[in-house]
Amino acid sequence: MTIITLTTDFGDKDGYVGMLKGIIYAINPAALLVDITHQLEAQNILQGAFMLHTTHRHFPPGTIHVAVVDPGVGTNRRAICMEVPEVGYFVGPDNGLFSYILEAYPNIVARELSNPAYHRQLISKTFHGRDIFAPVAAFLGRGEPFEEVGPQLELFGLVRLENLWPEWEEKKGKRLIKGKIIHIDNFGNLISNIPRRMFDELTPAELARLKIGIPLQITTTGIKDTYGNEKKDTLIALFSSSDFLELARVNGRADSSYGQKYIKVGDKFQVRLIK
Amino acid sequence: MTIITLTTDFGDKDGYVGMLKGIIYAINPAALLVDITHQLEAQNILQGAFMLHTTHRHFPPGTIHVAVVDPGVGTNRRAICMEVPEVGYFVGPDNGLFSYILEAYPNIVARELSNPAYHRQLISKTFHGRDIFAPVAAFLGRGEPFEEVGPQLELFGLVRLENLWPEWEEKKGKRLIKGKIIHIDNFGNLISNIPRRMFDELTPAELARLKIGIPLQITTTGIKDTYGNEKKDTLIALFSSSDFLELARVNGRADSSYGQKYIKVGDKFQVRLIK
Amino acid sequence: MTIITLTTDFGDKDGYVGMLKGIIYAINPAALLVDITHQLEAQNILQGAFMLHTTHRHFPPGTIHVAVVDPGVGTNRRAICMEVPEVGYFVGPDNGLFSYILEAYPNIVARELSNPAYHRQLISKTFHGRDIFAPVAAFLGRGEPFEEVGPQLELFGLVRLENLWPEWEEKKGKRLIKGKIIHIDNFGNLISNIPRRMFDELTPAELARLKIGIPLQITTTGIKDTYGNEKKDTLIALFSSSDFLELARVNGRADSSYGQKYIKVGDKFQVRLIK
Repeated sequence: MTIITLTTDFGDKDGYVGMLKGIIYAINPAALLVDITHQLEAQNILQGAFMLHTTHRHFPPGTIHVAVVDPGVGTNRRAICMEVPEVGYFVGPDNGLFSYILEAYPNIVARELSNPAYHRQLISKTFHGRDIFAPVAAFLGRGEPFEEVGPQLELFGLVRLENLWPEWEEKKGKRLIKGKIIHIDNFGNLISNIPRRMFDELTPAELARLKIGIPLQITTTGIKDTYGNEKKDTLIALFSSSDFLELARVNGRADSSYGQKYIKVGDKFQVRLIK
Repeated sequence: MTIITLTTDFGDKDGYVGMLKGIIYAINPAALLVDITHQLEAQNILQGAFMLHTTHRHFPPGTIHVAVVDPGVGTNRRAICMEVPEVGYFVGPDNGLFSYILEAYPNIVARELSNPAYHRQLISKTFHGRDIFAPVAAFLGRGEPFEEVGPQLELFGLVRLENLWPEWEEKKGKRLIKGKIIHIDNFGNLISNIPRRMFDELTPAELARLKIGIPLQITTTGIKDTYGNEKKDTLIALFSSSDFLELARVNGRADSSYGQKYIKVGDKFQVRLIK
Repeated sequence: MTIITLTTDFGDKDGYVGMLKGIIYAINPAALLVDITHQLEAQNILQGAFMLHTTHRHFPPGTIHVAVVDPGVGTNRRAICMEVPEVGYFVGPDNGLFSYILEAYPNIVARELSNPAYHRQLISKTFHGRDIFAPVAAFLGRGEPFEEVGPQLELFGLVRLENLWPEWEEKKGKRLIKGKIIHIDNFGNLISNIPRRMFDELTPAELARLKIGIPLQITTTGIKDTYGNEKKDTLIALFSSSDFLELARVNGRADSSYGQKYIKVGDKFQVRLIK
């Protein structure tokens, strides 16, 4: 049995996701289908890339990840599949969705999805999720050889997003990390693109006080372990369950309650180490 | 293995869909369950009928489609199942939900769901999705004979919605197609009930300019192939992935940005061929 | 095959639910996963408890119910699993989520989830749904013995919510039932925590007119069987499909149209028998 995950901006009211599943089951009824999310912001490729980055690690080797955020569908953007040893497969448009994956793993092999035997018979120009990505994933999942999906592509030619990671600088002897809000979760936690590893070499003393700009200036005392040990409504910094720095409000939401200020994905998330 | 699809207006916060799945798996643990959508507008039978029409074609023969938009539950409206050769089964209330299916296929056999052996033991008067439709689908899916669900019904007696398709007229030598907006998708695309086949015999010259009233008057240049080749924010007409005419805004939403005007499902979608 | 249900406040945009499913399938690919809901109000333990109470009865014996509404994650609140004979298992935090279950069944055995062999290798302090509850459920589902999850707990020591059920009193010879709105469903029906059994011994005459305060005063004529037999827009009382008293508006929503009044979960739902 093979797990096939779906990560899209399709939403849940149109039946588009159901169509994909119909296509997949028709080819491969033994597939185990898992919805990661279909609520990515429409056409927000970076958010999709980050979602793949944080979720794919929770799946066993061999899992096939289908991702569709595809504003360029029907244009000359390529359709691709990547094989990642010890991880699995990634199927979707070549538009930057796989930027984090490309960076994280060596020995990736990418292929262009040009073999029509693995596609739906009639291919629309507006819905390659249904007509190309889903059937390719279904065929791979039932054991068709990866080599058959199409010719190998040079990795350097694949589209990668810029600014995946925060920059940092020393300013008057203090470190400033210039990240951004890459996701706001269901609980209103502001999740940055600042990974835990950027703090690995810092001492507890250096982390004692953080100034966080989101863009408001907020000062937090250190980085907490979890939500429930602090006083209600306190704003706390902690590492998310996927090891990115986040700002949370205890028993509340960190994405509201700033007066007129409205916080959104893409806003800056800067951290200044005060000590 | 049999696929059972679910198309409802239940939403996702009440556990109603989960109950259906519990009932189905208890009877038929080998069922492959696919959610089409549970976000139909509450009690919007026409929207449900259109959703079934556009999605069922993506499933293999023998698939069982359960549809529940059921404002008349517990009244004297009938519960039915239809067998469609080469397609599968449709289970739900006899209230018009299957109007497009009834029109699309010959040789349909319909039966009333009156055999209590295939129902839940205690039948509520408010939730036949759980108590009748789900168990009937589960029993059919594990191979119980269709004949057993209840007596055959005359097809002409089944409820059908009116105005499924647009009307058209020639006005001063120009064709006017009088459709309506039947769905607004997750990307804000306005999907009409005007099928591609109404344009089949027209020449490219005749299609060069369209005047679309939604109810605003919009003029588009022709019918495009896909979204991504036009300038940002352009309003374009194209055929949806299910072959209905739609209005889309490149890299934006076509259901907003009309000043005070608010576009909604049911609004007119008229097309005038200018040439 | 074992059914594993998921009831959480995770929402559907973060990939958290997908992670749980990845963890479960990796351990137990034969699991049948059913989403009850992931749209519980964030951190609303009572709503989660009620959801479990009304949905678990629709699943076959042996089903494993995972519930995660967990504001105390990472603090000293305990992680537990309960075995309920003839019903199944319940896995989640010991914070009151299982209050109705604890009350409904005798012979429950509860254990603390302290055996790390059944947990994810790295345990975060913020996401025990992924790191503890999901893997424990997956292991139980593939047949690992319940005794292995950890030591037995005294039932009296488990956290239980107060005020699960309404109080009632006789006032000037008339019965007043003091319940509350425990859920508002997708159709705007106001579902109370007043069970049908509180009316069992009453005569139809006594039920002929009800005064319902939500907190507005509404007078309904009796308790109806279903929605569709009354006039459009009438407010009617009836028993929900899970046998709790609810207030519904025929072909409309009962949670709006009260002028400035805004009805929400937690508001009172009082019933006075007028006769």
